[in-house]
Formats: sequence, C-alpha cells, structure tokens
Amino acid sequence: MNTQTRLVEVRQKVLKQNDVVARALRQRFQEAGVRVVSLVSSPGAGKTAFLERVLTTLAGRKRVAALVGDLATDNDAQRLARSGAPVRQITTGTVCHLEAQMVLDALEGWDLASLDLLFLENVGNLVCPASYDLGEALRLVLFSVTEGEDKPLKYPTIFNTADVAVITKMDLATAVEFDREAAHRNIQSVRPGIQIIEVSSKSGHGMEECLSILA
Amino acid sequence: MNTQTRLVEVRQKVLKQNDVVARALRQRFQEAGVRVVSLVSSPGAGKTAFLERVLTTLAGRKRVAALVGDLATDNDAQRLARSGAPVRQITTGTVCHLEAQMVLDALEGWDLASLDLLFLENVGNLVCPASYDLGEALRLVLFSVTEGEDKPLKYPTIFNTADVAVITKMDLATAVEFDREAAHRNIQSVRPGIQIIEVSSKSGHGMEECLSILA
Repeated sequence: MNTQTRLVEVRQKVLKQNDVVARALRQRFQEAGVRVVSLVSSPGAGKTAFLERVLTTLAGRKRVAALVGDLATDNDAQRLARSGAPVRQITTGTVCHLEAQMVLDALEGWDLASLDLLFLENVGNLVCPASYDLGEALRLVLFSVTEGEDKPLKYPTIFNTADVAVITKMDLATAVEFDREAAHRNIQSVRPGIQIIEVSSKSGHGMEECLSILA
Repeated sequence: MNTQTRLVEVRQKVLKQNDVVARALRQRFQEAGVRVVSLVSSPGAGKTAFLERVLTTLAGRKRVAALVGDLATDNDAQRLARSGAPVRQITTGTVCHLEAQMVLDALEGWDLASLDLLFLENVGNLVCPASYDLGEALRLVLFSVTEGEDKPLKYPTIFNTADVAVITKMDLATAVEFDREAAHRNIQSVRPGIQIIEVSSKSGHGMEECLSILA
C-alpha cells in the first residue's frame, strides 16, 4: 500500500473515532439541556468580534460560555472573557481544526447543566473543520464581505456542512464594493435553502436576527 | 499504536516524500533558469488580485506563468489568464494545500526554460501549506489589513516559513482602522528580520517594490 492510500485510511479512522466522541458529546449536551453552537470561518472573518457581541448582549439574559480554538495564543479567550462569560482556550499547536476529543477535554470540571448556551469557536480555516463533528446542535459559517463573493464556490464543503451562513463586516460592504446578490447566489448554489443573515458586529446590525436563531 | 500516533507517523512519511519531490523540482527550476515564487495566505487575502496585477505589469517585460491551487472551480485560472500569461489550475478536491507532486504533474508539457518567472498560488489556508515545500525559491505570505493585526501571532508557522510578508488591501487600512505598527510588530515577533511590503492591488501602491524582489 502506498503512503497516500495509508494516509487516507488512517484519516478515515481518525474521523470515525471523532464521530464516536462527537455523538457522546451531543447526547451529553442534550441531557444537560445546553444548546451548543459552533462557528467556522476563514482566519479574520470576525468570529471573535461576532462572539464578543453575542456574549455581551446575552449577559444577564442567558447563561452562556465559550470554548475557543487557536493554533497559538490565548488572545481570543482573553478578549471574550471581558464579557463576563466563562471562556476557555483550546490551543491546537499544529492541528488546523478542533476535534471532538479536544472539546471533551476542555469541558472538564464544567457543570453543563448550569448553562443555556455553549459556543465553540473553531480554528480559522475554511477546509478541515468541515470534516469534524463537534457534537454541536447548530453550525454557523461566517463569511466576511472583504473575502470575495466567490468563496462559497471555492470552499463548498464548509458551507455544505453548516446550518446557517452569517455574512459579517457589513459595515465595510460599500468600501469593498461587496456584490450582495452574487454572494447570496453563490452560497445558495452550494447549500440550497440555507438561511443567510447579514451582520455588522461593529454597528450591531443583524444581531437580533442572529440571537433569535441562537437562543 | 493508537490512531493518533499512526496518523502522525504517516503524515511524517508524506512530508518526507514531498520533500524529495520538492528537492527535484527545485533543481529542475534552477537548471531551467526559472525563478519560482509561491504565495500563501488566508482565503480572501487577495492572492489572485495581487497576482493579476503582477502578471499584467510584467507582461512584455518578463516571460511569466502561474499555477493556481483551489479545492474547487477554475475561477482564478480564468481570471489570471486574462493577463495573457499561461496559467493552469490545480484542483485539489478535499486537500487543503498544494503538494510538490501536484506541481510536478501540473507542469507536464511546459517548457520551463522558456520562462523567467513561475508563480505558485497555494490554496487559501494559513495552516497546512506551511508544511509543504514546493521547490520554490521565494515564498510570500500575504496578509490583508481586514484580517486583524493579531494573525501572525495566531498562525506563526506560516509566517515563519515565508521569506517576505506582503500586507495587502492597504487602500482599506483607514476604513478598518488598521494598526500598522501592531501588524509590523507581530510579524517581526514571529519572524524577526523579515522584509515587509505594503501593497494595494487596487491602486498599485507598493507594486514596484514587490516587482523588485520578484524579478
């Protein structure tokens, strides 16, 4: 067997093991009554800014917590912790995505039943996070107006595995000559019927619509 | 041996095999007298717009060609072919990076000795492309002002394996309140001494400085 074939086989085994852990996580989340929402996007699409806004808005209304994945640094966890919500950083080293086992390990000691909502912010990557189920109930793919309207066509899998598409940085739409129709058309062509929400974490535009699907 | 350990081992073997092909490619490029420059970045950082500008500017001055990697679509190859340069698309399917063997295969039938410069545009991904040598003489990491100044700290390896950092979309710097000093400081902290060039593919700002290191 050549190395490429063996790599594919071992990867499939890793994915299968991930699915087993993800299924157990999903059941645990359901039993604890916590709604788990994951966020995937390209680096710099605004996951942390979006989550910062969501956590701050929900403070006092819902019991919310977050796990944040990055290759290095705990900058995002520090930023998000300012909202007052419990936040933990998962540092993945060279791994380009979160896996169910990392989520399981990071939850240690947390009483899930005391939470209404748990967010999982994945590593910024439009490819590999698509393949790893984290036990979430809802997966949001974020996509900023600065990235180019063709991205859904070029990274179809991540849009295909998401439940809702959130177009971020709408405050920059005019500056970057964002073609709204093309973006919507491209998202719908790879994931027909998906709900699309346009937001600006800066101005707060669209946040109430987001909150209505989250909580 | 558990699956994770086996995955690491098989991956290391893939990387070793990639290095062998990359070394052969590098020698072939040198013998043909073609300078090979690769581009890595996050999705939407502006690799294609940058390359479009470079190819158009060099048309008639240098004999230039490009290979462009994407998971799906040949949009980028079509865009770049408008410059008149020979361009080929590498479609990687689910693979999140280019490998030396893909470059080797895509070069089939091309007379490298007839070229001065060959560009390799990698898949948009700030993680995995860092590990794969493509036989290039120069690797540029592109990083747009819209992504956030902290990205070098969060994705250190890709900055560490690059020879030059190019900050793109400088025309949007004011609109996104880009903190130039923080960006430079963060790049230098993960890759001390690296040359940094600021460009706008839209206005052409900084392009001459780029061309001076490319050709």
